[in-house]
Amino acid sequence: MKVGKVVGSLWATRKDDKLNGLKFLVVKPIYGHDNELFIAADNAGAGVNDLVLVTTGGGARASLENSQTPVDAVIVGVVDSIEIENEE
Amino acid sequence: MKVGKVVGSLWATRKDDKLNGLKFLVVKPIYGHDNELFIAADNAGAGVNDLVLVTTGGGARASLENSQTPVDAVIVGVVDSIEIENEE
Amino acid sequence: MKVGKVVGSLWATRKDDKLNGLKFLVVKPIYGHDNELFIAADNAGAGVNDLVLVTTGGGARASLENSQTPVDAVIVGVVDSIEIENEE
Amino acid sequence: MKVGKVVGSLWATRKDDKLNGLKFLVVKPIYGHDNELFIAADNAGAGVNDLVLVTTGGGARASLENSQTPVDAVIVGVVDSIEIENEE
Amino acid sequence: MKVGKVVGSLWATRKDDKLNGLKFLVVKPIYGHDNELFIAADNAGAGVNDLVLVTTGGGARASLENSQTPVDAVIVGVVDSIEIENEE
Repeated sequence: MKVGKVVGSLWATRKDDKLNGLKFLVVKPIYGHDNELFIAADNAGAGVNDLVLVTTGGGARASLENSQTPVDAVIVGVVDSIEIENEE
Repeated sequence: MKVGKVVGSLWATRKDDKLNGLKFLVVKPIYGHDNELFIAADNAGAGVNDLVLVTTGGGARASLENSQTPVDAVIVGVVDSIEIENEE
Repeated sequence: MKVGKVVGSLWATRKDDKLNGLKFLVVKPIYGHDNELFIAADNAGAGVNDLVLVTTGGGARASLENSQTPVDAVIVGVVDSIEIENEE
Repeated sequence: MKVGKVVGSLWATRKDDKLNGLKFLVVKPIYGHDNELFIAADNAGAGVNDLVLVTTGGGARASLENSQTPVDAVIVGVVDSIEIENEE
Repeated sequence: MKVGKVVGSLWATRKDDKLNGLKFLVVKPIYGHDNELFIAADNAGAGVNDLVLVTTGGGARASLENSQTPVDAVIVGVVDSIEIENEE
């Protein structure tokens, strides 16, 4: 899964009906290419500035009530903390 | 999901019959590698210059009436606005 | 989906029986990293020098008669033309 | 599959209920872009500093008891050794 | 699918039981980023120095007897030859 920071929101009135009711957030990855922002549907009550755990692909759909929702990234958790250990 | 701008169209007469009736648009990502144009089937009535929300993978097929359509990217929404918040 | 040019062919005698009868073509992407050649099974009667539309992932298998064929990229169309519009 | 070193842990209290009971580890890939850390659910009793084998996508979910768990990366093994042969 | 050269082997005693009996090989891609080695389960009797055809994702699992095996890359063929044509 990816970890990212929620930096914004996306609105789309004209869309697949199966997306109705979902909140779309803009996520900035904290590892790797931090310019590769992407959009995730929220399933954890996340908001701007939250650090979030994002599941992609079929696993993203498994998080939603209707697993046939046409999404490929879902926020599945709000991160409390990440602890990186000192290398041996 | 990815956000991109529709920059063109693709035509293919000789193709898998299961693709008949679909409109194929060329999408330029607005985040990350903007030279990595890709093709998406349209399911939101999008056109050139529209900013669109694109779902990839199995979620793309979930958007279409026949979930066995051989596509891997579908335009699921036309973006009204993206609001990026100031960082804390 | 990706667009690429067919630049060659691949032969493998020793392979999973479920791949028998498929034609494997070498495809060079026309957008992005053009050195990242990949192999796609042909389902559109494509040949060398053709510009082709390639579906990846589960959508690729959806194109074939047996959706349990162990492939991850299938040529689903031969491109007639791509029209890129002038930017506004 | 990817090989990586476990470098830390992630905690998230507020999350999809289907993730309860899983341990989330931070994995640093040993090949390719080593700054692209990612999060994997542990299914091999792994801990910090272990070298691990990680399966992504639908295969990751296949490792867990409930294949509808919303994850996209699972640690499926702790690596004993990797032997790279001299090139011919 | 990807083409790569088998450069080594990986051993993991502590692993998901569903992986028992599989041989894990280290594959070096011949196109693109050749430092992005990855691990594939072997389903074609491949060995070190073989040039192999690798299917990823759900297609990889489709190659194995048990399609619920937690892998994301399987060697589905040993390559006899790749013929790249001169460009027009």
